[in-house]
Amino acid sequence: VAYAGVWQPPPGLLGNFPHLQAIFSLGAGVDHVTNDPALPRVPIVRIVDPDLTMRMSEYVALHVLMYHRRQRLYDAQQHERVWREHDQPPASEVAVGVMGLGVLGRDAAALLLRLGFRVAGWSRSLKALPGIETFHGPGGLEGFLRRTEILVCLLPATPATAAILTLDLFRKLKGDGAASGAYLINAGRGALQVDADIVAALDEGSLCGATLDVFPTEPLPPASPLWRHPKVTITPHNAAASDPRPLVANILRQIQRFEAGLPLDHVVNRGAGY
Amino acid sequence: VAYAGVWQPPPGLLGNFPHLQAIFSLGAGVDHVTNDPALPRVPIVRIVDPDLTMRMSEYVALHVLMYHRRQRLYDAQQHERVWREHDQPPASEVAVGVMGLGVLGRDAAALLLRLGFRVAGWSRSLKALPGIETFHGPGGLEGFLRRTEILVCLLPATPATAAILTLDLFRKLKGDGAASGAYLINAGRGALQVDADIVAALDEGSLCGATLDVFPTEPLPPASPLWRHPKVTITPHNAAASDPRPLVANILRQIQRFEAGLPLDHVVNRGAGY
Repeated sequence: VAYAGVWQPPPGLLGNFPHLQAIFSLGAGVDHVTNDPALPRVPIVRIVDPDLTMRMSEYVALHVLMYHRRQRLYDAQQHERVWREHDQPPASEVAVGVMGLGVLGRDAAALLLRLGFRVAGWSRSLKALPGIETFHGPGGLEGFLRRTEILVCLLPATPATAAILTLDLFRKLKGDGAASGAYLINAGRGALQVDADIVAALDEGSLCGATLDVFPTEPLPPASPLWRHPKVTITPHNAAASDPRPLVANILRQIQRFEAGLPLDHVVNRGAGY
Repeated sequence: VAYAGVWQPPPGLLGNFPHLQAIFSLGAGVDHVTNDPALPRVPIVRIVDPDLTMRMSEYVALHVLMYHRRQRLYDAQQHERVWREHDQPPASEVAVGVMGLGVLGRDAAALLLRLGFRVAGWSRSLKALPGIETFHGPGGLEGFLRRTEILVCLLPATPATAAILTLDLFRKLKGDGAASGAYLINAGRGALQVDADIVAALDEGSLCGATLDVFPTEPLPPASPLWRHPKVTITPHNAAASDPRPLVANILRQIQRFEAGLPLDHVVNRGAGY
């Protein structure tokens, strides 16, 4: 076995292949691979594919628009046969913030910009993106949060981002208390969030809604209070499902290039964890 | 009174102003003005404003994405604490069709194209739009419907479009019967649709879902079966709410131009009705 394409391999498994030359993660994240203490010292390749990117951006657009257009409020009105229009700020007055400006975060931010939102991004290192206000590093986080009403999290799970989504963080978000409070959309990794803090933030009002595709424990346990919380939308870690057709073709192209002596693309920096 | 800005004026009212020089509709449609048999023979100006256009396009994107990403199915699963992923076709395999290719239809179609969908459009007269397959006239309608899975209706209400959305039309839509059946989104005008035919199409399965912002009678009467139909999403005619700030500025610019001797923009063709 020279190449392994994996999703959540059992720890230790990949150490059994002495001829392994590269590991391909079948999803955008790689923490499911790097968490293995017996991982062989071969390159780990993230999947970067337009198909995967587009799926993530459409998930982000859908859930930002559901909050922006107050879809849950209109659903509740429909259930009560109520015909009532509410204030609708233009997108240009709504501040969306994207945490994580890798391939996925940049594409989502560009789509949100096309939709007319005021878009900012936060990342570990400084990035410059056209039309998007950028913040970076621990020192830039508070300024980013203070101007953000809808927070979209697309960070990778690394030691630096573990449990970054806390009650303290949510309290820094900008909510005007009226039409648009603060909202969270986490389609990054479950390890980024503290479930109990999300519930606390929703119950105290520092968050008005949360859309969660990922959880510290997946599948989300039936006992979790998130399932039936009236302000929570849950999807089963399918924001950007890996379609095997484009992904296999992508990996085969990488192997061909590698065997022709060319470098692999999108190799994980093990120090940074992504 | 030289200029009137109106929304659903009582019939006969505008005939009381002998010095009237132009009528400005405060919404995208003008049927609420042209239906007045005593309407004075002065220009009727449609509002065409980027703010209104962007609101309509975001409504269309939101509801197309809700169907594409099967949000109602995931909502139902969440209610039952079910963690289950379903097949998710890429947007490039989903055919969206936009009826009406005026300013609103063209912008919505361009946004859907940006989201990766296979987009086609149908209009009264032939139009060429980059990246969008176009059909036109009564002769082009069937071909347009046969390739369309998600039908977005942004037509104006005219004698030619009255009650165009019938059971017979819905039966021509492409539904694969599995993951993605056919869906209707009507954000055009209520006069375009036959409510009973929508219910019949949903109940027989030729439609799998309908999102309706407009109705023949508004507000939608409490007795309508649409309110509680499990496959219907209702919004209170607010797909593109008229924000007075940009619209008043737009009308004042038109009046200034008109008084300087320049022609009015977006004057309604009374023969066509839009």
